[in-house]
Amino acid sequence: MLNKLTILGPGLLGGSIGLAARHRKIARRVAIWARRLEAADEAYRRGAADEAGNDLAKAVTDAELVVLATPIGVMEPLAAQMKPFLPANCVVTDVGSVKYPVVTALSHLLPRFVGAHPMAGSEQAGIEAARRELFEGAVCILTPRENTDPVALKLVYDFWQAVGCRVSTLSPQAHDEIVARISHLPHVVAAALVNLACREGNAALKFAGPGFRDTTRIAGGPAEMWTEICVQNREEIGRALDELLDELGKLRSALANADAVELRALLKRAKHYRDELRFRQ
Amino acid sequence: MLNKLTILGPGLLGGSIGLAARHRKIARRVAIWARRLEAADEAYRRGAADEAGNDLAKAVTDAELVVLATPIGVMEPLAAQMKPFLPANCVVTDVGSVKYPVVTALSHLLPRFVGAHPMAGSEQAGIEAARRELFEGAVCILTPRENTDPVALKLVYDFWQAVGCRVSTLSPQAHDEIVARISHLPHVVAAALVNLACREGNAALKFAGPGFRDTTRIAGGPAEMWTEICVQNREEIGRALDELLDELGKLRSALANADAVELRALLKRAKHYRDELRFRQ
Repeated sequence: MLNKLTILGPGLLGGSIGLAARHRKIARRVAIWARRLEAADEAYRRGAADEAGNDLAKAVTDAELVVLATPIGVMEPLAAQMKPFLPANCVVTDVGSVKYPVVTALSHLLPRFVGAHPMAGSEQAGIEAARRELFEGAVCILTPRENTDPVALKLVYDFWQAVGCRVSTLSPQAHDEIVARISHLPHVVAAALVNLACREGNAALKFAGPGFRDTTRIAGGPAEMWTEICVQNREEIGRALDELLDELGKLRSALANADAVELRALLKRAKHYRDELRFRQ
Repeated sequence: MLNKLTILGPGLLGGSIGLAARHRKIARRVAIWARRLEAADEAYRRGAADEAGNDLAKAVTDAELVVLATPIGVMEPLAAQMKPFLPANCVVTDVGSVKYPVVTALSHLLPRFVGAHPMAGSEQAGIEAARRELFEGAVCILTPRENTDPVALKLVYDFWQAVGCRVSTLSPQAHDEIVARISHLPHVVAAALVNLACREGNAALKFAGPGFRDTTRIAGGPAEMWTEICVQNREEIGRALDELLDELGKLRSALANADAVELRALLKRAKHYRDELRFRQ
């Protein structure tokens, strides 16, 4: 059990961490910091913290673990700002969806930083959507560097497991490459599919079935957060997009040639792998 | 109430129609025909029909309404085969996901045919997945032609509404164009995303979160059925794919230029329309 856990940022992830940590008794005290006092109060009111406020120095004082649960772009300045008040042994982790730039910047500032990416968002956002079971069974990828302190890594590993995650480890680069393919690219493609269906307004939406709903659900995610993710991970997403354009080009030829053999091969291959995911817990 | 309803094909849709029709007392008798006797027996055993067998003449005798619930490619030969046994006033409808070629072919054979597309499939298939509430709230698009018998149209409209659908009407061409954008293209794109994520095997699947699961769920659908849909609707899917390639090309440039303004515009537009779908019942 941690003595004090401090969460910076009272959104969907920060709020859910607070709820889970209190429910599962992961820390004696859970503190939430928000830039706006009303946001901190709201997190407190919802039971996501034992104490909440907008005083950064106070929030991190005595903390054993600090979780950065803000938008990626805010993490570096916030880390610099809290650094003077951070206890010497305090470990820091985060929730960012892009790791190489974040981990590189934060590791320079904070010697006991261990990057993490709990894959448990949704198209919803904000404390209103927070819930204590958000992380149950979710994959959380830790991205230590070669020189990451093993004690800090162990603490962060135990923490994410304690909130309910299945924890894996990847290098920051490998994380960004894989996540571009299984999260970031699917997101922008879902957005492109919605834009295409609504090229001439919303008339087609009336005919949307469960397939379209599921395929495009993530396109309802916060645009600002996803813009930041796209910019930060643009190289890997771009590489993955080039490969997708290549796949779609093959598909385009198969359609033009009414090539059932090629179409069947593409669809069967996808079904083979997707079924594996379906029957996996 | 219909006197006798005959369903040709005991799969997910045919089986679910039988279950719904019996539960909601839409017909005095529900008959299911299957090419294989065991498949017919299984549908009977599961309560999807009052009688089931593989004798086509017997199945359609005395039927007031016949529902073609087979793969698209089988519909035309099956219609020709049953035509001699069909009662004079019998109305025929179907469940095919592509309408222009099917409606054109079947209208020549069957004067009282009214095309329909209940958008209620899933990645599952077969009678095992059939359930009587499958159509509840699902959109069903009817595709009458200019010369469709209005009495037949009314009967088919009432039937699909009675099994639980929200019924709309489109021309066969408009159906194929819209459905290419909201169902067929999303399907093949989901398949391409799976293939891309698994280019080098299944390692990346271990990190797949709920976003990837939802976005690619439909890629687990029956490959043979979707191959047929792709071939039958290849022109509209091809046109929609060209537009998607155009959208993705813009996205590629925005990533290459780290153009947050353009990325934000794409994502905001998609979120705007997707939220509309989310908050619509």
